[in-house]
Amino acid sequence: LELLDQTRLPSELHYLECRTADETADAIARLAVRGAPAIGVAAAYGVCLALNDPAADVADVVAACRRLAASRPTAVNLFWALARMEQAAGRCADRSQLAAVLLAEAQAIEAEDQATCAAIGRHGADWFDALPDGCSLLTHCNAGALATAGDGTALAVVFELARRGKRPHVWVDETRPLLQGARLTAWELQQRGIDCTLICDNMAAWVMRRRPVAAVITGADRIAANGDAANKIGTYGLALLAAAHRIPFYVAAPRSTFDFSLPTGDAIPIEERAREEIVRWAGVATAPAATHCFNPAFDVTPAALIAGLITDRGVVAPPAPETIAALLAPA
Amino acid sequence: LELLDQTRLPSELHYLECRTADETADAIARLAVRGAPAIGVAAAYGVCLALNDPAADVADVVAACRRLAASRPTAVNLFWALARMEQAAGRCADRSQLAAVLLAEAQAIEAEDQATCAAIGRHGADWFDALPDGCSLLTHCNAGALATAGDGTALAVVFELARRGKRPHVWVDETRPLLQGARLTAWELQQRGIDCTLICDNMAAWVMRRRPVAAVITGADRIAANGDAANKIGTYGLALLAAAHRIPFYVAAPRSTFDFSLPTGDAIPIEERAREEIVRWAGVATAPAATHCFNPAFDVTPAALIAGLITDRGVVAPPAPETIAALLAPA
Repeated sequence: LELLDQTRLPSELHYLECRTADETADAIARLAVRGAPAIGVAAAYGVCLALNDPAADVADVVAACRRLAASRPTAVNLFWALARMEQAAGRCADRSQLAAVLLAEAQAIEAEDQATCAAIGRHGADWFDALPDGCSLLTHCNAGALATAGDGTALAVVFELARRGKRPHVWVDETRPLLQGARLTAWELQQRGIDCTLICDNMAAWVMRRRPVAAVITGADRIAANGDAANKIGTYGLALLAAAHRIPFYVAAPRSTFDFSLPTGDAIPIEERAREEIVRWAGVATAPAATHCFNPAFDVTPAALIAGLITDRGVVAPPAPETIAALLAPA
Repeated sequence: LELLDQTRLPSELHYLECRTADETADAIARLAVRGAPAIGVAAAYGVCLALNDPAADVADVVAACRRLAASRPTAVNLFWALARMEQAAGRCADRSQLAAVLLAEAQAIEAEDQATCAAIGRHGADWFDALPDGCSLLTHCNAGALATAGDGTALAVVFELARRGKRPHVWVDETRPLLQGARLTAWELQQRGIDCTLICDNMAAWVMRRRPVAAVITGADRIAANGDAANKIGTYGLALLAAAHRIPFYVAAPRSTFDFSLPTGDAIPIEERAREEIVRWAGVATAPAATHCFNPAFDVTPAALIAGLITDRGVVAPPAPETIAALLAPA
């Protein structure tokens, strides 16, 4: 399994080779691959790697799923993809067909994600159709092609607006501590020739006050049944700032990001990561050695702050348990 | 003039030697010395250096004041201190006494700032007297000893609470792009044995939602007659987030930070700094080379978001043109 090592972007375009499910789990844990949909797709292929061992059977596939599921706790797409892989393995009575069945399921997950991204882009661009040419959107972290198997979620909307000749401009939050906005989103937008301006996260409020911002749009890692959305740390604050400036705040995500087992976002597990992410950058100390840190990787934005959820099946605006269920709930 | 080079903290304790007013202006411009009151004190001593040249006269002192005034635009303490130095020079009829007069004025500015910091600390600690032991405050950037000639402004309050046995805990925003919170505030608090937790700026909202925060307290670089306060970029957003969580937001500053010539904060000039501050850290790229940036060094928090101004003459709560003028306006 070849994965673009996102920890090295934009300085290096390095592909990582994963030969086992454990190596794939490690790549997910250390964010070589990140972004909720991309984690799901990578994990699905990681399960296939368990069958590189000719002696492996369904029990080994299930064990690989367990180890991959332990790599990160917040993005639900990971568990969703692994559940699909486990079900596919369970349906396969003939061990000699298991590898082919799992590979086909992983490829289906990947292909569906590509189609999903395209649908999110279309629904979002339709929704923003009335925005004037050259209008500014603001985004946080990376919800682009690097975060999915396709064109992204939030950025799929931007890319589709650009395709339709809208010439969008994007304010990009750098997104501390790991700078996914600066390293990944600014890079993706420039690769596609889309005008963007990088800011530090703490500048967003001032930009909203002094510059025109038509909307804020982010991705999500898990959305509860009522529309509460977990996403990269800083998203919740951004939603509050958008509300204070009467700027609509949107979340773009595929159906696989919804967790209907959780009535609200209160129960979404929030990953806390190592203090080293905050106190060191490129090997250089950014704070005294003994400094105690709090490093939650995600936060939860209450549905009340979200103007709309842009999904592959349409836009739920405003989000509510009934409207979400009507569009997205499993049959 | 020896200045602790704050750009090298906390890795190195390096003192910079300034031999001319121009070298002092350069040290201020590149933030080797920063913090509104400290800039004022450093500039006052920088004026004295103009007289190292035995041929220098009052005109050279005035010219040095002009060059120092051009070093940074936002903090009004700089212009306040330079005006005092220029007035002192103007009052000195005897050229042979000029050096002594200017040195005495700079020393007076420094000594007054020390007393001012102590008074801010006492008034603030009195104000927070009802807070329980071990309560948490949240601060942004550095408004401590490094930012003044004394104990600081916002941190003077924290230090005084600690002296009174309150055992305060401080959430420290790292404060991108130059990390004054991580590098300077976390360092100062640890030097004094005060419990603190470093967070990225974008985590403050989540901390406010999930952890007890009794108050937010920052410094200021310029306060208009109505209480609108310019401070390090990110302060305005923090004030909005505090309001959303019903956490009182305070600004601590000496009288020299008030600019009564400005009725509101709208006319406060906001310094924009180089994009390199955002796209590079420790010589390593944090974003693609061509990335366009917006890098305002300050923002303005409207008085309506400020629960109180903690000054050396007392606390103005809530701030309003009349209450501010009554306590602080020049006679």
